[in-house]
Amino acid sequence: MVKRGVGVWPLVSRETLGTFKIFSVRRESLLSPRTGRPHPFYVLECPDWVNVIPLTDRNEVVLVRQFRAGTRAVTLEIPGGGVEAHDGSALAAIRRELREETGHAARSWKRLGVVHPNPAFQTNRCTTYLARGCRPVGDLKPDAGEDLAVECVPLRSIPGLIRSREITHSLVIAAFHFLSLAR
Amino acid sequence: MVKRGVGVWPLVSRETLGTFKIFSVRRESLLSPRTGRPHPFYVLECPDWVNVIPLTDRNEVVLVRQFRAGTRAVTLEIPGGGVEAHDGSALAAIRRELREETGHAARSWKRLGVVHPNPAFQTNRCTTYLARGCRPVGDLKPDAGEDLAVECVPLRSIPGLIRSREITHSLVIAAFHFLSLAR
Repeated sequence: MVKRGVGVWPLVSRETLGTFKIFSVRRESLLSPRTGRPHPFYVLECPDWVNVIPLTDRNEVVLVRQFRAGTRAVTLEIPGGGVEAHDGSALAAIRRELREETGHAARSWKRLGVVHPNPAFQTNRCTTYLARGCRPVGDLKPDAGEDLAVECVPLRSIPGLIRSREITHSLVIAAFHFLSLAR
Repeated sequence: MVKRGVGVWPLVSRETLGTFKIFSVRRESLLSPRTGRPHPFYVLECPDWVNVIPLTDRNEVVLVRQFRAGTRAVTLEIPGGGVEAHDGSALAAIRRELREETGHAARSWKRLGVVHPNPAFQTNRCTTYLARGCRPVGDLKPDAGEDLAVECVPLRSIPGLIRSREITHSLVIAAFHFLSLAR
């Protein structure tokens, strides 16, 4: 592969247009090296995200069935969320999310990979972990914007759930791809 | 798997807060069946997206190296973009994107899968195609906001490019997961 000189565009100006709880919108002017002119972009600034494939010792995946406001539908996902300021690290954030969304804790943690959810217009990244030895340790702690239930499914049934569109979240599918590459 | 009564939350009210070329932001109030109270959500309304794994008859993937404003970095991706009103269909949109971003056309097309980029706060979906028999038919047609170069790599080198973080776009990784499930 030869890199043919596509470079990073210098920032001309930047302005925050609005802040909406889980993201903010910026307008940026960037200078195109190709045209020599500034071009306007709208950028979504989000905190970093994190998710986890939680495995039990029976090789089941601890999934969350939940209502999602974006698609106004009920989805089947692995646990995940945003890294909050008080978390201090992606790993601390996902330990918290696993506990809050599923009532489970894990014996061991391993980082599987990092993606950019959408580098075209989102600034953030999402780190994926594998958690082994997951076991129930207490009740779920949903916040006022959540409505969820835990479902444990055998790991071998995940490809079928993706094919049948029971699992459709791109970041969940990318997580399982990292798992398949790690094996 | 037992579905334990997580349902769709009724819409109480909705308001568009801003429109920013490739997305708009809505504030919605939805009624939680769990708490019995309305809860506010910020939702990103995007057009549907589409991408393609373009294979040549030498089993190479036609990739695009391009500057991306969200991460302000140069990425390596499969071709993709938004379905525009004049496209009429996801397939028409991705034929156009393949032509504009790589100068290639394909002999045959197959739909590999559909994801929700992020059902938590995005309304849209992304359809992934596999295109076989891709061949150069003309020059690239980048718009003013694009700066790109084509790179053909053997399909067998894709897992290594994902592991080494040369490919990081979640929708690209999900696309290759669909391809691996289809084989």
